[in-house]
Amino acid sequence: MIEIERKFLVKNDSFKKAASTENRITQGYLSSVAERTVRVRIKGNKGFLTIKGASNESGLSRFEWEKEIPIEEAKKLILLSEAGVIDKTRFEIKMGNHTFEVDEFYGDNSGLIIAEIELSSETETFLKPDWLGDEVTNDIRYYNAYLSTKPYNKW
Amino acid sequence: MIEIERKFLVKNDSFKKAASTENRITQGYLSSVAERTVRVRIKGNKGFLTIKGASNESGLSRFEWEKEIPIEEAKKLILLSEAGVIDKTRFEIKMGNHTFEVDEFYGDNSGLIIAEIELSSETETFLKPDWLGDEVTNDIRYYNAYLSTKPYNKW
Repeated sequence: MIEIERKFLVKNDSFKKAASTENRITQGYLSSVAERTVRVRIKGNKGFLTIKGASNESGLSRFEWEKEIPIEEAKKLILLSEAGVIDKTRFEIKMGNHTFEVDEFYGDNSGLIIAEIELSSETETFLKPDWLGDEVTNDIRYYNAYLSTKPYNKW
Repeated sequence: MIEIERKFLVKNDSFKKAASTENRITQGYLSSVAERTVRVRIKGNKGFLTIKGASNESGLSRFEWEKEIPIEEAKKLILLSEAGVIDKTRFEIKMGNHTFEVDEFYGDNSGLIIAEIELSSETETFLKPDWLGDEVTNDIRYYNAYLSTKPYNKW
């Protein structure tokens, strides 16, 4: 499928009181190049393998393929990944017809909080909560694959 | 799982008359580095995603994870792969308790024929047919991931 996403910085942690779910995520990359990202993720007690292609010209859509896999297999695959495993907590915040996914990063990316919203078209509008900061959709430094090799603390 | 395999050159095509199955295979790589190879394969009307780790010291065993995926998904994923899609026919030849998989390559790797046998231990013995040539197990030039970027015709 093609995924349409916009990404924003987060001004403060007032989003936490509106969160409906909260899950610890660890993820590593078997390939971190933007044209063919291969990600192994452990989210709570589930495993996922995700493959993403390059972004389109606007930077908003990207081919994405994802399969749930047994957590024991995910643990073995994450051991193969490149240096720089990402560790974060994901909060989900429902807002009108949409859901913001807000990631608070730890380790070498601590201090960074990013909100993402998935849209059904590139022109779809959505409500902007007051904790939402500057848009960074087109800035590849905020790709998790990029953060795994160039973490926020080294910018 | 850990895969134990030995790999040999093939002297002539007399193996073909003993083959029990024959399937065309096309495969591309989302990562072709030996430490974390990610392969998308189309074999006949089936799709597969395979991840391999680095070889152990002897060069005989390697971590391997494989999932069958719908062929339509495999076709989309192969479009994301690095340059150098591999095209070959795989013949299976039963010999005693083992099965040789013999790959005849086309395109930039034409002229190359490689036989592989999977073993249950590094010391297990097996019958050697008269078409079997020199062993190349430890020669990474014969990895398909390597052949995809440095094809046989350019050696």
